[in-house]
Amino acid sequence: MIAPGFTGSPLDRSEPIRIDPAAEIALAAAPGALLLDLEEYMPRLADGALGWSPLPALAPEERVLLGTIDGIARYARIDPHAKGARRSPELFALLTQLPAGEMATYATARSLLDWHARHRFCANCGAASQPIRAGWARRCPSCGTEHFPRTDPVVIMLAEHGTAAEARVLVGRQPMFDPGRYSALAGFLEVGESIEAAVARELFEEAGVVAGAIRYVASQPWPFPSQLMIACIAQVADDTVKIDHHELEDAMWVTRGEIAAAFNRAEGARFNPPAPHAIASTLLRAWVDGA
Amino acid sequence: MIAPGFTGSPLDRSEPIRIDPAAEIALAAAPGALLLDLEEYMPRLADGALGWSPLPALAPEERVLLGTIDGIARYARIDPHAKGARRSPELFALLTQLPAGEMATYATARSLLDWHARHRFCANCGAASQPIRAGWARRCPSCGTEHFPRTDPVVIMLAEHGTAAEARVLVGRQPMFDPGRYSALAGFLEVGESIEAAVARELFEEAGVVAGAIRYVASQPWPFPSQLMIACIAQVADDTVKIDHHELEDAMWVTRGEIAAAFNRAEGARFNPPAPHAIASTLLRAWVDGA
Ligand SMILES: [Zn+2]
Ligand SMILES: [Zn+2]
Repeated sequence: MIAPGFTGSPLDRSEPIRIDPAAEIALAAAPGALLLDLEEYMPRLADGALGWSPLPALAPEERVLLGTIDGIARYARIDPHAKGARRSPELFALLTQLPAGEMATYATARSLLDWHARHRFCANCGAASQPIRAGWARRCPSCGTEHFPRTDPVVIMLAEHGTAAEARVLVGRQPMFDPGRYSALAGFLEVGESIEAAVARELFEEAGVVAGAIRYVASQPWPFPSQLMIACIAQVADDTVKIDHHELEDAMWVTRGEIAAAFNRAEGARFNPPAPHAIASTLLRAWVDGA
Repeated sequence: MIAPGFTGSPLDRSEPIRIDPAAEIALAAAPGALLLDLEEYMPRLADGALGWSPLPALAPEERVLLGTIDGIARYARIDPHAKGARRSPELFALLTQLPAGEMATYATARSLLDWHARHRFCANCGAASQPIRAGWARRCPSCGTEHFPRTDPVVIMLAEHGTAAEARVLVGRQPMFDPGRYSALAGFLEVGESIEAAVARELFEEAGVVAGAIRYVASQPWPFPSQLMIACIAQVADDTVKIDHHELEDAMWVTRGEIAAAFNRAEGARFNPPAPHAIASTLLRAWVDGA
């Protein structure tokens, strides 16, 4: 059972309530309803989990119903003046203290709130829009268009050359990576592409390798701001690499043993592995284990 | 090799040229550059393929570079006054005459043009935005935000009960379906969800079944307006179905033999299958073949 970071939230999303305003108002008014503790997108941790406080009185357009946990309504606050979110090293340090399921709940809240902050106006006509559906959409009062939160699919993949004990996969590093770190290649899926088409295109563009058979391994949400990471492995017949230096600083073929050494921080390891909550880590470990 | 509809475009997307305006202008000016023939999103067919015409003089913000085919630049026209696209039975009748790769090229053009038509204003500040990057993004001159075409992931899945000869999968019908048609269940993936989480949530919401192990089968772009369809199979231990009648009119468990009969339009078949270019068709056929 593969369990990447940011997956396994205990939230029941309670979708039907979103289109039943009376039921949502009752849920928000019921004793025990909770608000996720966030200060400019930074969570407050309590006993190794996300912190929650009693839900204060908020107008419907200032709250998003994340769902319920243990039958208790869980909200996050839509601040009509909030700015879009940024990543910070402090946030990652906090998140790594959380189990994956708590990270998944945080991911849901963060992506939604950040979407509201960056999408206050109707893309169809330019008028100011308002949250509806318990915070899961916005509606334009001028032209009537409804807008929904966006999720951008990203493919992240290993090219694989050879079989069995001879097999190696391709890892690369971007200039912005921490020193010594290598990871799987990745890129946004574009309109008109299947997952497999995007994997093949990105591998060819970034590394000049031609994908054969492609297999899916796992997926995760990545809330910076709202990607869906789709992890795959693509067999290649030719291991000649031609790096696109606009994208990658370096790339190299590594064996299962070399990846294991990287994760074990072994002396003489050829590279530092991706962070454990990133699906690149899941993907590399899954490949070592035979995926 | 599984090849759903709307996949296998011969386009080379020529991504680096999008951020090189001088190279793009040279490409558009080169003899032989072609424009996709579209009349309000309807393609013109020529010899069983998409029709193209010589590229006329267009301002950079009135053209999108789809890519190259056989080394020849391929464009579509961004009409600054176009309305968003609608589906029509006439369009589907046309598309079914095309091979999947031609449908994929059409899907790319349609999703891009429709995105431009529906996203003329900056969601961040409400000002009118302009196409940039050879039609693959828009930029707001007022706040500087860049906006990219959206692709909305949708999970489409079969619940599977039992094994080997006893195995059955769950198909359902929406009230809007043609008479007798049943298909796989489906729904939009939400922010903060993995593919597997979305599959499990949708199966439980729509049919009350609890997903166990989930396996990925295939994907396709679906340009109405711009979905990424992600097809999976989820094993379930309990075949008790509880239909959400807001979503489904009916659902039933069917065997491999019953699905084969449906595709063969056999006398006495229990249902009519989904259209061949829909990934639901690919998914059902793949399951019959042992996926
Ligand atoms: Zn509007
Ligand atoms: Zn703007």
